[in-house]
Amino acid sequence: MKFSPALQELIEALRCLPGVGPKSAQRMTLHLLERDREGATALAAALQTAVDKVDHCSRCRNFTELEVCEICSDARRDAGTICVVETPADVLAVEQSGSYRGVYFVLMGHLSPIDGIGPEEIGLDRFQQRVVDEGIEEVILATNPTVEGEATAYYLSDVLQREGVKVSRIAHGVPLGGELEYVDGSTLAHAFSGRRPVE
Amino acid sequence: MKFSPALQELIEALRCLPGVGPKSAQRMTLHLLERDREGATALAAALQTAVDKVDHCSRCRNFTELEVCEICSDARRDAGTICVVETPADVLAVEQSGSYRGVYFVLMGHLSPIDGIGPEEIGLDRFQQRVVDEGIEEVILATNPTVEGEATAYYLSDVLQREGVKVSRIAHGVPLGGELEYVDGSTLAHAFSGRRPVE
Ligand SMILES: [Zn+2]
Ligand SMILES: [Zn+2]
Repeated sequence: MKFSPALQELIEALRCLPGVGPKSAQRMTLHLLERDREGATALAAALQTAVDKVDHCSRCRNFTELEVCEICSDARRDAGTICVVETPADVLAVEQSGSYRGVYFVLMGHLSPIDGIGPEEIGLDRFQQRVVDEGIEEVILATNPTVEGEATAYYLSDVLQREGVKVSRIAHGVPLGGELEYVDGSTLAHAFSGRRPVE
Repeated sequence: MKFSPALQELIEALRCLPGVGPKSAQRMTLHLLERDREGATALAAALQTAVDKVDHCSRCRNFTELEVCEICSDARRDAGTICVVETPADVLAVEQSGSYRGVYFVLMGHLSPIDGIGPEEIGLDRFQQRVVDEGIEEVILATNPTVEGEATAYYLSDVLQREGVKVSRIAHGVPLGGELEYVDGSTLAHAFSGRRPVE
């Protein structure tokens, strides 16, 4: 015995959402049908619209409905500085910090040889070409401080420095306002190895 | 700065799902667009199909694509016994136990005067009429052992017994295989007050 076919299919379909198991898919389905059919219809439309319209920016690979995204086509931004991040969420985080006026390159992932993700899969070959062709002044590596993120940063700094491009890595360490006793060990290790002389 | 409009709308739309906050809606959106566009399209279709086709069974109120659901129209089931539950998930749980061959009535909720949910809102007026008209032999109350579930069971047993209908309540107590020390206090209280002499 199961739910009726249309309900069962919706329960299955909801499983495509990350973090949604069978029980929560069932709870979501019953909730939508009983209390929020308008929400369900709006969600169906939003899903289809996003799938149909959203693609990668031809310059930075970030998600956009345009051929070139708003940031890449903003003449007030410094097109000579490119910040390399792993995901669109990282772009958002940097933008919200208000500390950066250059443009971006979004890897949509990181190097992961075991999963068959090499430089081409994250667009690094075309990126390298672009940096050289456009005479970019500085590339800021803002991949995550994880094993894969560090490896990706290392690979990029290697190939770009050989082309004579200035490359920098954002600083990692104890977050401002963070209490030392609550900071995890690898962050602390980063903070110590990245220590600078007090002037 | 936000994501592009179509992404932002999808993030908002996902918030209609219970338990999905802004951060997980964002994670779901980026995951679907980057890794599972087919899943997103299938989910959009499943949502619309469910909204269009699924309605309440005219007899038991359970969700179904039919006028009368499969259980209600199954001639092998005992139509003289009705089990009253709060939700479609409860029907599934009872069916999966394999311990019941009668039919159901699904309240799609419980009495909750503070929220303006009285007997009519959960279909009890029509249910009472149906029980009397069809000369139902027994009504088994399987609402949840919560304050609202108990109040709903109490209300139903009161009106049905006045009509001379046999009414019973499922037993509550320590689950089979449950260890006493891990059972919560109110379940234990139920188990003690519902104790029966050993024969
Ligand atoms: Zn762009
Ligand atoms: Zn039915």
